[in-house]
Amino acid sequence: MSKIRRSARLVDITHELLTRPHTLIPLTFFAERYEAAKSSISEDLAIVKEVFEKNGIGHLLTVAGAAGGVKFVPYMPKEKALAEIRAILRRLEDPDRLLPGGYLYMTDVLGEPRTLRQIGCMFATVFADCQADVVMTMETKGIPLAHATAEFLNLPVVVVRRDNKVTEGSAVSINYVSGSSKRIQTMSLSRRALTESARVLIIDDFMKAGGTIRGMIDLLQEFQAHVVGIGVFVESAYAEERLVDSYVSLARLTEVDVRERRIRLEPGNYFA
Amino acid sequence: MSKIRRSARLVDITHELLTRPHTLIPLTFFAERYEAAKSSISEDLAIVKEVFEKNGIGHLLTVAGAAGGVKFVPYMPKEKALAEIRAILRRLEDPDRLLPGGYLYMTDVLGEPRTLRQIGCMFATVFADCQADVVMTMETKGIPLAHATAEFLNLPVVVVRRDNKVTEGSAVSINYVSGSSKRIQTMSLSRRALTESARVLIIDDFMKAGGTIRGMIDLLQEFQAHVVGIGVFVESAYAEERLVDSYVSLARLTEVDVRERRIRLEPGNYFA
Repeated sequence: MSKIRRSARLVDITHELLTRPHTLIPLTFFAERYEAAKSSISEDLAIVKEVFEKNGIGHLLTVAGAAGGVKFVPYMPKEKALAEIRAILRRLEDPDRLLPGGYLYMTDVLGEPRTLRQIGCMFATVFADCQADVVMTMETKGIPLAHATAEFLNLPVVVVRRDNKVTEGSAVSINYVSGSSKRIQTMSLSRRALTESARVLIIDDFMKAGGTIRGMIDLLQEFQAHVVGIGVFVESAYAEERLVDSYVSLARLTEVDVRERRIRLEPGNYFA
Repeated sequence: MSKIRRSARLVDITHELLTRPHTLIPLTFFAERYEAAKSSISEDLAIVKEVFEKNGIGHLLTVAGAAGGVKFVPYMPKEKALAEIRAILRRLEDPDRLLPGGYLYMTDVLGEPRTLRQIGCMFATVFADCQADVVMTMETKGIPLAHATAEFLNLPVVVVRRDNKVTEGSAVSINYVSGSSKRIQTMSLSRRALTESARVLIIDDFMKAGGTIRGMIDLLQEFQAHVVGIGVFVESAYAEERLVDSYVSLARLTEVDVRERRIRLEPGNYFA
């Protein structure tokens, strides 16, 4: 790219940073790309930083020295997150979402790109410093949330399957007890999915007693991997006992009254 | 936001456009946000447009008139797409990816945020004008690709399940014949997932004979919905007969030799 002026540099730098979060980009990358002095790039970055911070887009961390550079850390302020969550919960409280058995239909909401981006950015804010190597979830409904989070954290996603698939190669399977139904189920993970001692962030859409997440934690022991964070979008207040101690929830389902057709959700423990 | 200078506006406008693709944003939105004249905003957008086009990020379409505004249409030039695809294929040709039965392990590659972004942007380029209302895929491995595509097209994602889940409400199920294994299988979709006459873009990770995609097309008839595009990441050259006529593939698996431990992939019909 030939020498270009500041205004064009700002557009391109903003694009580079937004599409490469949690990645240290050396100042020389930009200096060479625009044939500009590092001091000019530093001035550009100061402008970007100010806008990102002011508008709740994220932080720009600058690392000094020869191995230094700039890193975009997506960050959603808690007040903004709370407002977004409240707007989502109002939609989820629609009585038409009640399904037989007292289940709550939320598949449509978790299929919207904008909603996924918001939730992904919230989880990425919560777990920005947990130094995870990978985001893990259980098929099927956790997958979009895991990817939305992973995109903001710049991490790969690993999906635990309910059965062993030929397209996954050899796998480790365990049996676990689903906390609410008390049924014994199987989950499996490809041997290729995790390196030893991997640091794993678990993301899922819904947690009642936590049997599925407990199963994932047990499964990780088979890989000598360990959990560095657990995030669930909605937790149920109805659980008799919790099989998981430490987790972050963005929302809490506090009431499901099938006869009165009433659903109540509150912001989760992240906002407590 | 109080009156701010051009440099800060450019950063914020770039962020707004990148996070809201395929969305018409009125110029008044920006003019009010920055307390700036529309003529200044138009100058800002001209700068953004030039950088986006030059760097292969996408097009900025401006719609004149009272209902007008600006729309960011992500676009990856074909040469850039071909280079990205070749780089991905080189990795997939690693003999260690061969699984028993001649299957190809590609779950890790399709779990990487950067790779998903590239493929999603390619599909969004191919299907930019198909006016889809929704992106549809089959669980499990198609989900990340469908979401990556949907994010660039600003569309919701609908997931066809292999069995009927209590958390999806009433569903329509059909039986279909998996083209390669000739087994009869079931797929189901929640009644709530699609509105009538919806225009559907089908995205999947792999296609051999096309039985799964054929099944999805048949399922859509039950919803009076119709297919406006089909995109598969990898198609197999091994299929004896194709159950699907018109589709776009980004890659083509042309050789799997288990004894010689050799895998060959070529760019798909999109590049032909």
